[in-house]
Amino acid sequence: MRAATDRPVINFNRGIPPREAIPTKDLATQTAAIIDERPDVMFQYPPMGQYLGDPELRLQLAALHSVDPERIFVGTGSLQVLDLLAGHLLGDRNRDVYVEAPTYDRALQIFDRHGARVLGLPLEDDGLDIELLHQHLRTLVPVFLYTIPDFQNPSGVTMSEAKRRALVGLSETYGFTILEDAPYRQLRYHGAALPSLAQMAGGARVVTIDSLSKVLSPGLRVGYAISDADTSLALASLAECTYLSPVPLCQAVAARCLAAGVVASNIGWLRQILGPRRDEAVVAVRSFLGDALFAAPDGGYFISAHLRTDVDEATFLAALRAEGIALAPGSAFYPPPATPPAGTLFIRLPFQALNPDDFAFGVELLGKVAEKLSR
Amino acid sequence: MRAATDRPVINFNRGIPPREAIPTKDLATQTAAIIDERPDVMFQYPPMGQYLGDPELRLQLAALHSVDPERIFVGTGSLQVLDLLAGHLLGDRNRDVYVEAPTYDRALQIFDRHGARVLGLPLEDDGLDIELLHQHLRTLVPVFLYTIPDFQNPSGVTMSEAKRRALVGLSETYGFTILEDAPYRQLRYHGAALPSLAQMAGGARVVTIDSLSKVLSPGLRVGYAISDADTSLALASLAECTYLSPVPLCQAVAARCLAAGVVASNIGWLRQILGPRRDEAVVAVRSFLGDALFAAPDGGYFISAHLRTDVDEATFLAALRAEGIALAPGSAFYPPPATPPAGTLFIRLPFQALNPDDFAFGVELLGKVAEKLSR
Repeated sequence: MRAATDRPVINFNRGIPPREAIPTKDLATQTAAIIDERPDVMFQYPPMGQYLGDPELRLQLAALHSVDPERIFVGTGSLQVLDLLAGHLLGDRNRDVYVEAPTYDRALQIFDRHGARVLGLPLEDDGLDIELLHQHLRTLVPVFLYTIPDFQNPSGVTMSEAKRRALVGLSETYGFTILEDAPYRQLRYHGAALPSLAQMAGGARVVTIDSLSKVLSPGLRVGYAISDADTSLALASLAECTYLSPVPLCQAVAARCLAAGVVASNIGWLRQILGPRRDEAVVAVRSFLGDALFAAPDGGYFISAHLRTDVDEATFLAALRAEGIALAPGSAFYPPPATPPAGTLFIRLPFQALNPDDFAFGVELLGKVAEKLSR
Repeated sequence: MRAATDRPVINFNRGIPPREAIPTKDLATQTAAIIDERPDVMFQYPPMGQYLGDPELRLQLAALHSVDPERIFVGTGSLQVLDLLAGHLLGDRNRDVYVEAPTYDRALQIFDRHGARVLGLPLEDDGLDIELLHQHLRTLVPVFLYTIPDFQNPSGVTMSEAKRRALVGLSETYGFTILEDAPYRQLRYHGAALPSLAQMAGGARVVTIDSLSKVLSPGLRVGYAISDADTSLALASLAECTYLSPVPLCQAVAARCLAAGVVASNIGWLRQILGPRRDEAVVAVRSFLGDALFAAPDGGYFISAHLRTDVDEATFLAALRAEGIALAPGSAFYPPPATPPAGTLFIRLPFQALNPDDFAFGVELLGKVAEKLSR
């Protein structure tokens, strides 16, 4: 092994866009242009009645998704939108939530803070275990099921079309809402897009949570929900008495970037630069971790593995740190008492921000550490 | 009376800064400068570990308040900061909150959403009824008491120095936290500043909530808390799993405006333009509403009155609307079952954004409508 001190830490622990993924120049241009055009409204409170979001941005997002603008609610990032949705949907008598296991750790923290009882359904390489979901539904129908069907964070798994159809069917039969979190959906590097759950359900029963963080800029903090118009209004009213409104300037910049085609061209660029990183990541994980690979992702930021090892997670992470590898604890992605398969640790490997050599080197080292510890 | 159709609605229902109160040109300049200087970080997620806020902004705010930067937490507007504080402090077994009656309506909505049991203590023209507070404390000590001691929204009342001292003493004796909301504190048009509750308490037991919305720009959505360092960290951790972080660009612009003296000079300008509006508002309310005046404010945005009338609030507001006067329902500022004094309606009159003639005309008309309805 190379000595850890020879090189910087290999950072496997954060799913942020690499610098080159953000169209900084266009964002700067659009920021200057909108301040020049509408200086008086950019630094003011939003006009009364605009708590659903900047009207121009809502029009742009509605066009992007081919939905009525009434169905768009804009919040300060998609995490905040999820928090408002949880606040809106959960209550003392409506506390049951189903999620994939593993799932996005911050979503779990939000549900926990809102007093939810969370059940994790095992995630398979083509989406959550639908049979097990059906069994659970016979005894307990949740308020909502939270899923990231495309290139899931943390696993990279995409839900198959058959499972999508089955899930939408079950939501109709049993009467629960699906929260479809779709921040990576546009970042597909291989194959054709599958229909979204919202498209399959025709708008009923599915609330989509989306964001411009991965396709334009995370710093703008622009996330949004696509739901029925009543839910949009409820979210706006909750937002108004929580944080009042997202930053008007950020919303206006986002609207202009959508209108000027900056988002569309940036998505094209992202596919160009991230696709090869995904390809090399798949090769590296297959080479160094073998059949521990969870699923070869067709897009997004993440590849993951179930690593066979006898040691506990804390010992493993400490050993990795000593070798200059930072890794998020995989257990944080599981709602208790759900865990990875017995005898394995769940490993999330974000590939979007590392050069392929560093990624491969890190994965190789990770494999060696696991092997050494298991002797 | 002039016919309502001759003129636009006189808007008494929103406490937003007038256009001329926001230093738009300076904000535009600083925005362009920071994007030019640090383009790559302005549109990105904040660096890990910066969930307390932009380090430069925290230094500037710490200097402004002569406190240690560790004690500063920056959130997306002061309402969001209050929401996080409520989430941090309130729990199933800690639900009691004391407020002034009347108080800021959105604060009441936040406490309500967090499951608080709220007791409203009558506000007098020199602050809340301290004797009654003391009586209540003998049987029930709240988690916190929420107060706006300077130029209160909605009443315009400022808490006297004697009451401040008594309140801080009671918080030490009985062991409850004071949330001191101070967005208008810098906007004093007459007399010398009274010590803040935080200054009196020497930092213990008082959390200050403050904002740049009234002295720089509401659109930046920069609010902050000054508390002990542990509370700051708790708020940051709660923020991280609610909305991640405020907009990096807005925080950087705020930091630069503080560093460049834009905030200080704007406060000077605001005193120049708003002081005369306050003076004419006091004259108008005294002339047309007589002894209904609650208190002559020494700063801030609001003057208020307890208007004697036999009619209920809905009837009164509808009659005003018919005359082209928009007024926020005063009852919304009272936590149930607290109400204004019997036989009166509470009237909040924001003077900061109206020209004095319109303000006076509106108050005169309001008095006439009340008189007519009471016949």
